[in-house]
Amino acid sequence: MPAKSLPVENDGPDETAGPSKSEQTRALILETAMRLFRERGYDRTTMRAIAQEAGVSVGNAYYYFAGKEHLIQGFYDRIAAEHRAAVREILDRETDLESRLAGVLRAWLDVAAPYHEFAVQFFKNAADPDSPLSPFSQESEHARLEAVSVHREVLAGARRTKVPEELRDVLPELMWLSQMGLVLYWIFDRTEGRERSYRLAERGARLTARGVALARFRVLRPLVLEVHELFTDFLPGMTKVLPDPGRRAAATE
Amino acid sequence: MPAKSLPVENDGPDETAGPSKSEQTRALILETAMRLFRERGYDRTTMRAIAQEAGVSVGNAYYYFAGKEHLIQGFYDRIAAEHRAAVREILDRETDLESRLAGVLRAWLDVAAPYHEFAVQFFKNAADPDSPLSPFSQESEHARLEAVSVHREVLAGARRTKVPEELRDVLPELMWLSQMGLVLYWIFDRTEGRERSYRLAERGARLTARGVALARFRVLRPLVLEVHELFTDFLPGMTKVLPDPGRRAAATE
Repeated sequence: MPAKSLPVENDGPDETAGPSKSEQTRALILETAMRLFRERGYDRTTMRAIAQEAGVSVGNAYYYFAGKEHLIQGFYDRIAAEHRAAVREILDRETDLESRLAGVLRAWLDVAAPYHEFAVQFFKNAADPDSPLSPFSQESEHARLEAVSVHREVLAGARRTKVPEELRDVLPELMWLSQMGLVLYWIFDRTEGRERSYRLAERGARLTARGVALARFRVLRPLVLEVHELFTDFLPGMTKVLPDPGRRAAATE
Repeated sequence: MPAKSLPVENDGPDETAGPSKSEQTRALILETAMRLFRERGYDRTTMRAIAQEAGVSVGNAYYYFAGKEHLIQGFYDRIAAEHRAAVREILDRETDLESRLAGVLRAWLDVAAPYHEFAVQFFKNAADPDSPLSPFSQESEHARLEAVSVHREVLAGARRTKVPEELRDVLPELMWLSQMGLVLYWIFDRTEGRERSYRLAERGARLTARGVALARFRVLRPLVLEVHELFTDFLPGMTKVLPDPGRRAAATE
């Protein structure tokens, strides 16, 4: 894959400018690490080896990434950024919830395809929700918020879908959770071209669209809220997601 | 744990008689294997070592268990049988769905407690749904059907819960699936005495009871059926579970 600039860290403006030298170095280290993780496995790859292969000093590598775990966060951020770019066209075109969601899930499978082998190896490091490498960890928050915000947009732009106010923050997170279910399935999918995962994406989108449509019934809302509450109470990273007033304000416009 | 007899294989009558010599040997091999898996890890334990520690010939060990994977199935069967025994008193006493389900989930956590360390190690072998060691595999069907039948009983004996005919086979499987969610959570639970898992069991039971209560609404049934269909279409072992006429007949009496 091309070593393009990845302004995925939320550390300032500069997003319209071309990639700075610093961004290029950062991207190069990340590329190299991902390649070595794929070739040698995460556990057997050292920061020293990554620096060496990238042609930078060890100190320089540590300047950009405080450790291997941070490289994984960089990887999550990259996937999230690539995904966000890939869904732009779908979200601008599709107007019904099922098509929007199916498109977003398919785009994720497309973006992640080159990393499948790595994901299989890496799974045992990321499955533990208390690991900083888990998608639920505090450390993964940046990538997770990016991903949840895609689902927020999926929902907000679905023309015929009326979402009750009280579910507006909750549903995008549940949709992201079901995307995590798809990711888990994809990791173990050995079919040619991950064909089953693509089918699951379609089916999952249909099911979710139905679920969201039903969530407008007043009798169901407490259940939806309780499901969400259960996840936020029992998964580490999610607890802090809801009460952030900035996000809440953005969601209601 | 005591080396008691475990007539968990469905290969004939004989369930009321005491443990035969053959059953005792089988149980001894299983105990020994479980101990070695715990002490040395699953990957590093050989059939030869198990036979040696159990004081039987390697040939004899292979007579009872065709390989390490079969020992794991034996382990699953044992957990299922112990669980079934542990829930007896709860199911005879409790009459409302939430208490019945909470009791059943708590009993599972009690029964599984001695194996927590092993489960953590073993997770990477069992997480792949295509592995024979996965709880969804064809090979695990016996233990899975046992476990699903417990949930069938949880539901059937809940006095004030009316379950629509069309959901009678589907709900126990979905309840078992949510139990698998609890198992996954428990594996990564590092709290003292797995205290969080016990709390999740309570909360999960409450949520499930609510969900089942809502499933009586006609508008929701298609969604419940579709969720179940999605799981049966995409997880290996489950596909074959529904169409078995024997089980279906037993369920409707």
